[in-house]
Amino acid sequence: MSNHVYKKIELVGSSPESIEDAVKTALARAAKTIRNMRWFEVKETRGHIEDGKVAHWQVTVVVGFTLEE
Amino acid sequence: MSNHVYKKIELVGSSPESIEDAVKTALARAAKTIRNMRWFEVKETRGHIEDGKVAHWQVTVVVGFTLEE
Amino acid sequence: MSNHVYKKIELVGSSPESIEDAVKTALARAAKTIRNMRWFEVKETRGHIEDGKVAHWQVTVVVGFTLEE
Amino acid sequence: MSNHVYKKIELVGSSPESIEDAVKTALARAAKTIRNMRWFEVKETRGHIEDGKVAHWQVTVVVGFTLEE
Amino acid sequence: MSNHVYKKIELVGSSPESIEDAVKTALARAAKTIRNMRWFEVKETRGHIEDGKVAHWQVTVVVGFTLEE
Amino acid sequence: MSNHVYKKIELVGSSPESIEDAVKTALARAAKTIRNMRWFEVKETRGHIEDGKVAHWQVTVVVGFTLEE
Amino acid sequence: MSNHVYKKIELVGSSPESIEDAVKTALARAAKTIRNMRWFEVKETRGHIEDGKVAHWQVTVVVGFTLEE
Amino acid sequence: MSNHVYKKIELVGSSPESIEDAVKTALARAAKTIRNMRWFEVKETRGHIEDGKVAHWQVTVVVGFTLEE
Amino acid sequence: MSNHVYKKIELVGSSPESIEDAVKTALARAAKTIRNMRWFEVKETRGHIEDGKVAHWQVTVVVGFTLEE
Amino acid sequence: MSNHVYKKIELVGSSPESIEDAVKTALARAAKTIRNMRWFEVKETRGHIEDGKVAHWQVTVVVGFTLEE
Amino acid sequence: MSNHVYKKIELVGSSPESIEDAVKTALARAAKTIRNMRWFEVKETRGHIEDGKVAHWQVTVVVGFTLEE
Amino acid sequence: MSNHVYKKIELVGSSPESIEDAVKTALARAAKTIRNMRWFEVKETRGHIEDGKVAHWQVTVVVGFTLEE
Repeated sequence: MSNHVYKKIELVGSSPESIEDAVKTALARAAKTIRNMRWFEVKETRGHIEDGKVAHWQVTVVVGFTLEE
Repeated sequence: MSNHVYKKIELVGSSPESIEDAVKTALARAAKTIRNMRWFEVKETRGHIEDGKVAHWQVTVVVGFTLEE
Repeated sequence: MSNHVYKKIELVGSSPESIEDAVKTALARAAKTIRNMRWFEVKETRGHIEDGKVAHWQVTVVVGFTLEE
Repeated sequence: MSNHVYKKIELVGSSPESIEDAVKTALARAAKTIRNMRWFEVKETRGHIEDGKVAHWQVTVVVGFTLEE
Repeated sequence: MSNHVYKKIELVGSSPESIEDAVKTALARAAKTIRNMRWFEVKETRGHIEDGKVAHWQVTVVVGFTLEE
Repeated sequence: MSNHVYKKIELVGSSPESIEDAVKTALARAAKTIRNMRWFEVKETRGHIEDGKVAHWQVTVVVGFTLEE
Repeated sequence: MSNHVYKKIELVGSSPESIEDAVKTALARAAKTIRNMRWFEVKETRGHIEDGKVAHWQVTVVVGFTLEE
Repeated sequence: MSNHVYKKIELVGSSPESIEDAVKTALARAAKTIRNMRWFEVKETRGHIEDGKVAHWQVTVVVGFTLEE
Repeated sequence: MSNHVYKKIELVGSSPESIEDAVKTALARAAKTIRNMRWFEVKETRGHIEDGKVAHWQVTVVVGFTLEE
Repeated sequence: MSNHVYKKIELVGSSPESIEDAVKTALARAAKTIRNMRWFEVKETRGHIEDGKVAHWQVTVVVGFTLEE
Repeated sequence: MSNHVYKKIELVGSSPESIEDAVKTALARAAKTIRNMRWFEVKETRGHIEDGKVAHWQVTVVVGFTLEE
Repeated sequence: MSNHVYKKIELVGSSPESIEDAVKTALARAAKTIRNMRWFEVKETRGHIEDGKVAHWQVTVVVGFTLEE
């Protein structure tokens, strides 16, 4: 984290399994177009309920990545 | 989420296993008396410690459900 | 939680596996020097990314413990 | 606001028209079962988008009402 | 605080005397209909002024109670 | 917004009509004694309820104005 | 909101008329380049004052849209 | 709280006795120059320590009063 | 508060009597091992309920003290 | 900070040079009409950009001063 | 700030020298691809420590720029 | 930041010169007793005023350091 400039973007990933999986889903999608992702911050954890049960975990993550020179 | 009015209530579920389980415990209890639960928001994650280890995860969830006409 | 005075300290635990594991790592380290830990509060969930994937979950926990008389 | 005890509940009203209408929708529904509503606080303003336009305003209001003796 | 599910409700109690009294007023009213109240959190302290003096302390408390099985 | 010093004051305007009107009411009153008001920030939106309906919107605005040299 | 990943962006729309119009202005501009916008969250409401009156409402909205596979 | 415009100011009162007394001290001073004070909100409670004991409670209160026509 | 460096620690004191007493309890315990405490900030006020009444006030205070050279 | 009552006001100072200078600009202007300023708190740091560079730092400071008896 | 729509992005700039320099570094990088940057808001100030000293200031800035028609 | 556990402590450093210097003062004092400090977060910037001018900048920093195995 020395002389670089980073950009932060905000994504929402979802998963029927877990909070961790929802974060991974978001990162996997982001990795298709963004290189050099460095860190993330979980900002919000929500979810949808169907038939009285958790249908999806929906997690908002802020992802930081290096802007190339 | 069109023309309905929703009510939000705040519950605390607990689980010796995981944050996700604590949320599910809260929803399972709520489902006994509330129909039409639609979404939840995790508001606070705490827990009790016994003998230097996590004894229970305690998760505060806000649950939104449709108020019937 | 009756007549005692508690102290709260802030720790960051990390784990390649899960948020829960990162909390447990922090508590396990703290248990080496602190007795009478009673509760924790998850304050922040972050993580490092390597090769587009979660490398470590890093969870800030506030831990409360009894100050002995 | 003298010697009474008040309860606050949290509702989400929606309207295709305006923020004000979304609040009124929530209050109108609440008035069916709650007497003595006294004040409200707008907590969150969100909305759904369809075809690039606002489909519904969704406003979270906290409503305070007198608990009868 | 082991295997139970708790519900949190938000009340506003008032007192001409003190912040503590305003909390007690809210709890006394709640105790008429709610069993198993366990803890409270003071969320907001406000008050009304008459003739340049405090007429009432108005304290918003969140009360947590056990939902029975 | 170049070399000036600004002061911010906090006002509450009310209106039976709308949030916008409540802001305008506050600004109209402030304009009687303050020159050079430049911007405002809506900080809180509340209201009073009578007979189950919105009686007044009450909007807290922070107003910034230039302090003259 | 099932298996998709969403991105959130932050826009500021303005309008001389109303808060709602300022939001619509922001969405109309965004719709030129973004497909699949799903929801928005109003984050901040500010405005400019000229001659003691509201010249523009300026509303910061966070817009969520589906990232296509 | 009908058609008036209110101004909010922020004061810090102190007392060696209690939080309530610190608020009263602030209001008593304000009452010398401000008429029509209507409500207050406790924003921050701090204090000074001397010889390991509370020397003064210092309470920040926001006071709302009617601006006369 | 001139050239010193201060450390802040977070304590929870409790009292069956009052918020002020809970703060004093925390400071009295801290004074056993910490010299040069200078100020405190009340961060959170909670409490336990037994038989529908306040059993203990539990107040989280942040205490600042001078680090000796 | 013993028996006095303090008032807090909110100012915005600006400077093309630095955050510190923007604070000093605000205090210098305030010192023209306010005696007995005691402390300040930096609340917000913003700035204007021209030609891709910082044109002005704009810092919101809350200033506390003694109200004379 | 009249009829335009603005977009806000979040950047992290770093500098071994100062907070101001870290902001300038972020803006200089952004200026390579973004025209019409208008304002910034400092959101977070952090830094890395090496050998007990500040190695880099890392400042998160939100930058607002005009979206062209 | 891989497998370690970190502790965060909160310090207040002061300087008559600048915000950066106040942070450095706090770190220099902490370095006397703490090894392996890794990062800091600026949490609050305040200061004392004498004769209408900044006498000291007082900056609260949270410092994270590695707990040794």
